[in-house]
Amino acid sequence: MRLIPRPALRRPFYGEFIVKPVKVGICGLGTVGGGTFNVLKRNAEEIARRAGRGIEVAQIAMRTPNPNCQITGTPTTTDVFDVASNPEIDIVIELIGGYTIARELVLKAIENGKHVVTANKALIAVHGNEIFAKAREKGVIVAFEAAVAGGIPVIKAIREGLSANRINWVAGIINGTGNFILTEMREKGRTFPDVLAEAQALGYAEADPTFDVEGIDAAHKLTILASIAFGIPLQFDKAYTEGITRLTTADVNYAEALGYRIKHLGVARSTPSGIELRVHPTLIPADRLIANVNGVMNAVMVNGDAAGSTLFYGAGAGMEPTASSVVADLVDVVRALTTDPENRVPHLAFQPDSLSAHPILPIDACESAYYLRIQAKDHPGVLAQVASILSERGINIESIMQKEVEEHDGLVPMILLTHRVVEKRMNDAIEALEALEDVAGPVVRIRVEHLN
Amino acid sequence: MRLIPRPALRRPFYGEFIVKPVKVGICGLGTVGGGTFNVLKRNAEEIARRAGRGIEVAQIAMRTPNPNCQITGTPTTTDVFDVASNPEIDIVIELIGGYTIARELVLKAIENGKHVVTANKALIAVHGNEIFAKAREKGVIVAFEAAVAGGIPVIKAIREGLSANRINWVAGIINGTGNFILTEMREKGRTFPDVLAEAQALGYAEADPTFDVEGIDAAHKLTILASIAFGIPLQFDKAYTEGITRLTTADVNYAEALGYRIKHLGVARSTPSGIELRVHPTLIPADRLIANVNGVMNAVMVNGDAAGSTLFYGAGAGMEPTASSVVADLVDVVRALTTDPENRVPHLAFQPDSLSAHPILPIDACESAYYLRIQAKDHPGVLAQVASILSERGINIESIMQKEVEEHDGLVPMILLTHRVVEKRMNDAIEALEALEDVAGPVVRIRVEHLN
Repeated sequence: MRLIPRPALRRPFYGEFIVKPVKVGICGLGTVGGGTFNVLKRNAEEIARRAGRGIEVAQIAMRTPNPNCQITGTPTTTDVFDVASNPEIDIVIELIGGYTIARELVLKAIENGKHVVTANKALIAVHGNEIFAKAREKGVIVAFEAAVAGGIPVIKAIREGLSANRINWVAGIINGTGNFILTEMREKGRTFPDVLAEAQALGYAEADPTFDVEGIDAAHKLTILASIAFGIPLQFDKAYTEGITRLTTADVNYAEALGYRIKHLGVARSTPSGIELRVHPTLIPADRLIANVNGVMNAVMVNGDAAGSTLFYGAGAGMEPTASSVVADLVDVVRALTTDPENRVPHLAFQPDSLSAHPILPIDACESAYYLRIQAKDHPGVLAQVASILSERGINIESIMQKEVEEHDGLVPMILLTHRVVEKRMNDAIEALEALEDVAGPVVRIRVEHLN
Repeated sequence: MRLIPRPALRRPFYGEFIVKPVKVGICGLGTVGGGTFNVLKRNAEEIARRAGRGIEVAQIAMRTPNPNCQITGTPTTTDVFDVASNPEIDIVIELIGGYTIARELVLKAIENGKHVVTANKALIAVHGNEIFAKAREKGVIVAFEAAVAGGIPVIKAIREGLSANRINWVAGIINGTGNFILTEMREKGRTFPDVLAEAQALGYAEADPTFDVEGIDAAHKLTILASIAFGIPLQFDKAYTEGITRLTTADVNYAEALGYRIKHLGVARSTPSGIELRVHPTLIPADRLIANVNGVMNAVMVNGDAAGSTLFYGAGAGMEPTASSVVADLVDVVRALTTDPENRVPHLAFQPDSLSAHPILPIDACESAYYLRIQAKDHPGVLAQVASILSERGINIESIMQKEVEEHDGLVPMILLTHRVVEKRMNDAIEALEALEDVAGPVVRIRVEHLN
């Protein structure tokens, strides 16, 4: 072996180091910050038995006290930048959220040679490339397991556990609020606005639910997953995002009758012409495990050329599940303190110099199967017209369901499932369908993924 | 920062080392060995983009060629010990299986300062303590992700991804053959011997299926999962193992009618008095995700005090899924080549000096809920007698189902679900039930886990 060990240098160094705990600073003592403080305190012994070294909270930056945390003896400050410049602190934990101050804080901490652990998906998805470049320059780690799917160690699974694979696709239920709403709509036949109001009352959804129900939060997470799966830079601005606000219980029920469930899915797929990066309501066959992920739970499926399909399931948010990932990152960083910065797990899974320039595809170049609901006059020629429009565009119909009984205004809904086709063609077909005299109103179109 | 870096020593060292691929030797070119060779070859570029360094197969030990592998230019040998003593080789991949030669091979490789990657669950479960002690002494890594649940990175998830947690329990479907048999019994009403014969014909089950259907293979894997979850030494000899050979379609159907599925589950649970370590057929509520894991697929649920319940699902065996984990271990070892041996992820997740002596409980001290099927004479006093026997032993009945229609020989099956109780009491109750004059034959008892 020509590599390592370097015993003369290493041993005394390590001897000094096992007795001293690693010092961390928590910035933000809200839900996740409070959970992180509590987990570090409650499981201190268990964590030290694993890490070989204690983890000590040396400073906390917070605006207001968290009633769930008993802080005794830990210095506090109201200025997060105090933590970033505290010479005692080895690792800065950024849990304040948002883009602006969080970005400044993380860059300052890196500048000062601190490692950083963050749960901030928006920050990583939007400013990650800049942050990782800076971290590389300074030889420090920015860890972000908690940024995607809360307590599920899915970043680690993709970045390390599946490192043998050429990843074909990733598909995830990565927003708990959205999944709670869809689960209630399906199980109880409730409408979207009704369930949203309850989710807000329960504290699952923010007062401004846009990030959750419009898919922006999911797109942040999907952007991160796609980067580590395919070895591409973070490109949040190229993600296609469609929310669940227009979903009706009618479509939820038709999907059910056809053997599908509707989930708000983030899909990232590698194709020869580019990478699909899209968040939208999606029909999934009901017998797939991921179709049975209900309530606020999250799950991410990853399909690799060697491992096949794997699925990672758990709580996607919440005080302690997210803290679980923050603390796991801390333990990883503690272990990495003695490593060669050039030989660590790369931030985006692939060596920064070997990231791929494979483009993100616009949505009309993406391919999927489709569910279409067409409100049409109940007369015998309509089906022929519809079939002909689709067939002229090379779109194959998998099945048709006509609900004769639900007629009103002389209209009956015609439900179609198609085979896979590029979206551009489907847009064109829908335009032609809507122009038919016997078709009323817009055609409802929901993408279908079989996730085989 | 008082830790690292040591630039003067590090940089030139790394510079030398990025250009040279790491050299590995594959011992055994059967299913997993062949898959490993093929994945390393096919995904060489992708793997090097991640690892920052190529991985070169420098030698292969095999008895007979594998028709699935195109070996050109790689030196081969028929003696695995050639690989263990090859000075060119950094990492030895043990894929020969079995206990005896595999143990000698691994110990010899460690002795020679090689890192080891293995997929051998029996070896790790039975000889792991000895192997890890030796590896520690020599400062090398023995990686074994592929030993449990094939392509699912569950060792990494528990050992690293959930390191913040006090793990409460682990429950897994960790034998694909057994799960295939149970799935067929449930979905098609087939009998155990019938499905077993098919599984053997399909190549899922060995000619001697004992390891699979008697739960020994699952117990090997569970032993490993329990060690890394709870920080205890490997204690395969203390695992309780009960197979699926006596399961009848009648019980599968009754379970179904009660809203449960029967799975061959490995359960490891930490309790104040000790650790439960048991493999047996188990009723699981049908709406749990893990109850819906079908066919040859595997899944492991882990319940931690911070993360709550997480689930990891995927292919539990097969050429390339298992190879996926072998190669992921190789990438991890490549990264660890520049680390301090004392500051790596410990083999059993916890620092070797801090393993716990918490005992493994004998099965009669384990606690679970129960499904009982009692063949009783169809007369009104029987239920009162049964209820009284259970109640005298503090066993609470959750529900009773009597199948009046299925009477034969004047007997009707009485199905009971109980609340949780320690097994000793249940044994005592069953003895008393079987002594009743109106009860015929043995009472069927299957454990129930709710996995909340």
